[in-house]
Amino acid sequence: MASARLLVRGPGDGRGRNIVPFQRVSVCGIHVTGVPFDELVRSAELLINALNLRRNYMDISHQSFPTGLAYYLDHHEAPPRPTFKQSSVDYGGAVLKFDSAKADQYIKLSTCSSEELCNAIPLREHESRSEHHMHMTGTIMTIKAGTHRESCDSQEDLDRFLKASDAWTCYVPPDSKYLYRWERGVVQIYRNEEDMIARHPLNYRNVTFVKYVEDLSRLSDMIADGPLKSFCYRRLSYLSSKFKMHVLLNELHELALQKAVPHRDFYNIKKVDTHIHAASSMNQKHLLRFIKRTLRSCADEVVAVHRGIPKTLRSVFEEMNLDAYDLNVDLLDVHADRNTFHRFDKFNAKYNPVGESRLREVFLKTDNYMNGTYFARIIKASKIITSHFLINGQREVIADLEENKYTYVEPRISIYCKSMSEWSKLASWALRNDVHSSHVRWLVQVPRLYDIYRINNLLNNFQEFLNNLFDPLFQVSVNPQSNIELHKFLTHVIGFDSVDDESKPENPILSENMRSPDEWNDEENPPYAYYLYYMYANMVTLNQLRKERGLNTFVLRPHCGEAGPPSHLSAAFLLAENISHGLILRKVPALQYAYYLAQIYIAMSPLSNNSLFLRYHRNPLPEYFERGLKVTLSTDDPLQFHYTKEPLMEEYSVATQAWKLSTCDMCELARHSVIMSGFPDEMKQHWLGPNYKREGPEGNDITRTNIPDLRLAYRHETLLDELDNLFKGVT
Amino acid sequence: MASARLLVRGPGDGRGRNIVPFQRVSVCGIHVTGVPFDELVRSAELLINALNLRRNYMDISHQSFPTGLAYYLDHHEAPPRPTFKQSSVDYGGAVLKFDSAKADQYIKLSTCSSEELCNAIPLREHESRSEHHMHMTGTIMTIKAGTHRESCDSQEDLDRFLKASDAWTCYVPPDSKYLYRWERGVVQIYRNEEDMIARHPLNYRNVTFVKYVEDLSRLSDMIADGPLKSFCYRRLSYLSSKFKMHVLLNELHELALQKAVPHRDFYNIKKVDTHIHAASSMNQKHLLRFIKRTLRSCADEVVAVHRGIPKTLRSVFEEMNLDAYDLNVDLLDVHADRNTFHRFDKFNAKYNPVGESRLREVFLKTDNYMNGTYFARIIKASKIITSHFLINGQREVIADLEENKYTYVEPRISIYCKSMSEWSKLASWALRNDVHSSHVRWLVQVPRLYDIYRINNLLNNFQEFLNNLFDPLFQVSVNPQSNIELHKFLTHVIGFDSVDDESKPENPILSENMRSPDEWNDEENPPYAYYLYYMYANMVTLNQLRKERGLNTFVLRPHCGEAGPPSHLSAAFLLAENISHGLILRKVPALQYAYYLAQIYIAMSPLSNNSLFLRYHRNPLPEYFERGLKVTLSTDDPLQFHYTKEPLMEEYSVATQAWKLSTCDMCELARHSVIMSGFPDEMKQHWLGPNYKREGPEGNDITRTNIPDLRLAYRHETLLDELDNLFKGVT
Repeated sequence: MASARLLVRGPGDGRGRNIVPFQRVSVCGIHVTGVPFDELVRSAELLINALNLRRNYMDISHQSFPTGLAYYLDHHEAPPRPTFKQSSVDYGGAVLKFDSAKADQYIKLSTCSSEELCNAIPLREHESRSEHHMHMTGTIMTIKAGTHRESCDSQEDLDRFLKASDAWTCYVPPDSKYLYRWERGVVQIYRNEEDMIARHPLNYRNVTFVKYVEDLSRLSDMIADGPLKSFCYRRLSYLSSKFKMHVLLNELHELALQKAVPHRDFYNIKKVDTHIHAASSMNQKHLLRFIKRTLRSCADEVVAVHRGIPKTLRSVFEEMNLDAYDLNVDLLDVHADRNTFHRFDKFNAKYNPVGESRLREVFLKTDNYMNGTYFARIIKASKIITSHFLINGQREVIADLEENKYTYVEPRISIYCKSMSEWSKLASWALRNDVHSSHVRWLVQVPRLYDIYRINNLLNNFQEFLNNLFDPLFQVSVNPQSNIELHKFLTHVIGFDSVDDESKPENPILSENMRSPDEWNDEENPPYAYYLYYMYANMVTLNQLRKERGLNTFVLRPHCGEAGPPSHLSAAFLLAENISHGLILRKVPALQYAYYLAQIYIAMSPLSNNSLFLRYHRNPLPEYFERGLKVTLSTDDPLQFHYTKEPLMEEYSVATQAWKLSTCDMCELARHSVIMSGFPDEMKQHWLGPNYKREGPEGNDITRTNIPDLRLAYRHETLLDELDNLFKGVT
Repeated sequence: MASARLLVRGPGDGRGRNIVPFQRVSVCGIHVTGVPFDELVRSAELLINALNLRRNYMDISHQSFPTGLAYYLDHHEAPPRPTFKQSSVDYGGAVLKFDSAKADQYIKLSTCSSEELCNAIPLREHESRSEHHMHMTGTIMTIKAGTHRESCDSQEDLDRFLKASDAWTCYVPPDSKYLYRWERGVVQIYRNEEDMIARHPLNYRNVTFVKYVEDLSRLSDMIADGPLKSFCYRRLSYLSSKFKMHVLLNELHELALQKAVPHRDFYNIKKVDTHIHAASSMNQKHLLRFIKRTLRSCADEVVAVHRGIPKTLRSVFEEMNLDAYDLNVDLLDVHADRNTFHRFDKFNAKYNPVGESRLREVFLKTDNYMNGTYFARIIKASKIITSHFLINGQREVIADLEENKYTYVEPRISIYCKSMSEWSKLASWALRNDVHSSHVRWLVQVPRLYDIYRINNLLNNFQEFLNNLFDPLFQVSVNPQSNIELHKFLTHVIGFDSVDDESKPENPILSENMRSPDEWNDEENPPYAYYLYYMYANMVTLNQLRKERGLNTFVLRPHCGEAGPPSHLSAAFLLAENISHGLILRKVPALQYAYYLAQIYIAMSPLSNNSLFLRYHRNPLPEYFERGLKVTLSTDDPLQFHYTKEPLMEEYSVATQAWKLSTCDMCELARHSVIMSGFPDEMKQHWLGPNYKREGPEGNDITRTNIPDLRLAYRHETLLDELDNLFKGVT
């Protein structure tokens, strides 16, 4: 048996791929995977099977799936080579010439008018005019916001610019008059009453619960399969070693290429904080100052009603024996400390300032007696960046972002599903307080707290939970005029998150004959995978409806694999476009490898993990990153974990120092965060380059991402090699 | 033989110490140190000997030495108990009552006028009126700067305040007409010419080189002594364990006490960055922006003369093929990366922006063709914090600090000793550019580069190096009018630092018959301990002269133990008030224990170490801290290591997250940094409490330091226990 050989090749390796010149490590020989052929075949079949499953789930839900991998699954061979990309790289030296056309385009884009811009960027395939307009509004605002700082000199310019933007304007389709009905926990949509009576729903695709349980159990068998485990572990170890060799051989070249990019560096590439909770998006000192200031200036405002008696802010504090001057960060007690490690309960309590849920209610909720005014004030964009603003030394969260124009956020805001009115209250809060910012897109997080509500008799069964979550969404999607505020707010919502302590005990195994949501009426909490399915299945229907109506669609981006059983990660592998955390993947090589092959994005928050579940130096992020998993850095809860006024930069700083990341690594992490994010395609094109969706170096524009093509070529070629191995095995 | 017993005691342990109530861990038994009595005696003698040596060196140089330890050395017993401190702590619960008188005093202090304040704070013992005035100017400014933000509302108030302060005004004593002469590398001072002829110098104390070499070799024998090594290692391990037990038993109580302090928390206690280099005190993005802005606005300024031809800033950049738009952080290339680890040479090269010493010359030097205008602009206080300032999005280093009013810095600025004119150029740079800030005190760093200058024939022997360093200082101290600028500048200089790569090969052993500085005329660089002695010995004379004249004195605060042989740490143990780094102490238990007993402050920079000498997770800081060594956190070079706009907070953040420090630990580190710093005694009183110099809890004021008395009681009692063990051994 011929052994596999390791080769290092320079440019022009004769394999016919587009030549991005760098030192390539490749293996030649017969059994290049290092396992016997029959084991390879078996492993490949299992993995391809899993990938096919995911592809189906992603397709019907309008969530993304890599085009290259889809081609492999269809044709069992690599996609045809893209045409050769004009490379102006002067190989071997540090001096590069640049594509001047590209640079021109960039400059033009950032200085042209809104109209020019709207025309300059073509409609995407299948994109409706309304979608285009909606997206473009965002893009133009951002671009203008970006250019402003560089070009306009006077305060008047700024004011004029800010007044001109009406953020919430959007396309409003007419009433479709569709009807819908819940059937075993999933909504069915009907064109009209006759269809409903005849049980002829619209021809929307979906996955039944039974099929889901079946798929889940196939995955569950797969991850327990011994030979597959070994195979995946070997491949992951190989990927680690290969990356280390790549870096040893190419890092100086990578750095030289980065240096040669005019103007661009890690500080001025776009970064998205892909996982952050709105209620903890300010740092502790910021919240403290806000509370103190509010207590000084608004002490006599009525902020709550307790047993029919109105309470002013002053009286709330008096009852707690607190005054504004006394308050300090220690007393606020919202920071995670060594006592929160493996104590999610203690950590959750940290959301209550001074340990008082009353203060959380007043300051950190959207739905309270004062309609969340204070919370909005903390997080909303302060559009007047004046000297007054500085002299007070105060600024609010979104304003902080606009000061740092390269940082974007995707905050989570809660829908608890305790009542049907939550959505309209949330939307009306958002619009009334105008919490709009071109730097922000919202995700709605749904805490898995059915059991608590059931115990307190707020709900009778799990179906009511689902009703509260989805009824308002279907109603407003059928007829936007029925709740125009919610309709507008939803244009800035990009998806759903599912949150709670994953380490809570549960029966992780679903069965086909489980009770349906309307029958789920006792105090037991449904398992993680059950929650996720019903969020997914209804989102699938909702997305098809909204797509048909020219509205934006949503994605599922749950917290997953922070703790608890690996089955959570199997469920998300089927249902979710991407996940937050994914720590548990380190224990499940087969799933980790499948996540790699499917290029599923993972928003990781190592500082958060360090306080809750896993010490920093044991965090798998650097290992995942080496192996080519699509990880990003996110903050999770700056209120609980961070110290500076730049929490995302702090997160990058710690990671870079602890794991000795290169600037190329940092830029790659930042690019991941942009791609993973739910910001509109046009903004991503502006941030990453017009072809960012193409795989490999063709999708890169170093003048915007600061990542050398060769790094993406390495990643892409490595992935193709892995897929080649698998698909050669099965054909 | 009776074994030692471990006891945990509540309040009132019957040992007669002042009762700060907390859970105490103590050992009872006969051989409480765990070693046989004769070994204890021997070890104690060696250690006490070393402490006596240090005490002498500190005394004659007017550097500080702990009063408690001095008492032990004199009387071989513990100092008499201070009178019982009124404790208003309600033991056992979280609710505290506060000393309202103290709180009143605090409030009064921060709102009274300058005159009131100057009168309110009495002269220290031996303090001259001029010293007092000088110190008070600083104090009042700070206090005013502090109150301003809270009290004054209008821009006019701010302007008026800023104009009122004339920072450099100071007491100028008349010409003393003293004469001085160099004798074997150390200055001797004579009252007049007759005395000089008669060789009757003033009766100043000093240590001869021969005596120093002798002391050093005693230390060197000591640290090699086997039984002593074991003894110290045992004691240090004991101290670690004891601290861990203290924390387990008291941390909740500590936290409760901290919560109860009105208003005070980690964010608003004073912190000093005790080790930072001026030339790298801005972060990389800041420097980049400054260079870009300067290139846009001052392109035609002549910034250098090369072979007689004047060069404008534009032409300097043109020669390097750079333009303002192209520049990026990667090209700037000043950040340490994984390639600087154990490569101090590479790290040093990072001080050159774009790898060009020309740019370092133009932007980061005080003494260049344009007299350091740009460098001053970067670091000087921007006294106009206006809207203009924000709209440009620019601010300079000291301005950043004044925005963060709780952070103070002690930047190092270089005197190279290549020529006699360096001091006056530096002083005139400082005054012309008014780089004054109440948040800044300067240290002068002297790179150990004699060999380089000698090779380039800039110097003939080491004596000329010393001349260039000290002649200007003696001249201006004898007659301040001779160089009034230098005189004024020196009032803001607090000491000397000695800097360079400690891992360079050298013969670490000094001998008595080494060549004196005037004979040291070849290209060999003198060893570390030789440099340090001649800086120390001349500083001793200088300090006595300045003390006599009512001028401020200096301290020696060298880089020491970052790398290289342990002998560096022995030299600093004798000569230096405190040191930076001290990493090598982890390898030398006897010295580490001696540093603990002598409570020598150590400014540590773990992020810097992580890039240069020791990975973060192996840094000994947390171990030193547990054991009670007086460590602080400092940034060293934000230009090379940090990412955010708050480098000191970033340093604290990483340490806290990596080592799970409690907020009490963080506050203790911050308090160390204030005590270690060279800010005037009155400012320290204002920051830490009027009694801060008293040892133990009597010196604490939790309302200012946010440290519970019990933590300082633990530290103090633990130290007294250690000293008791030793001194009981020898009496």
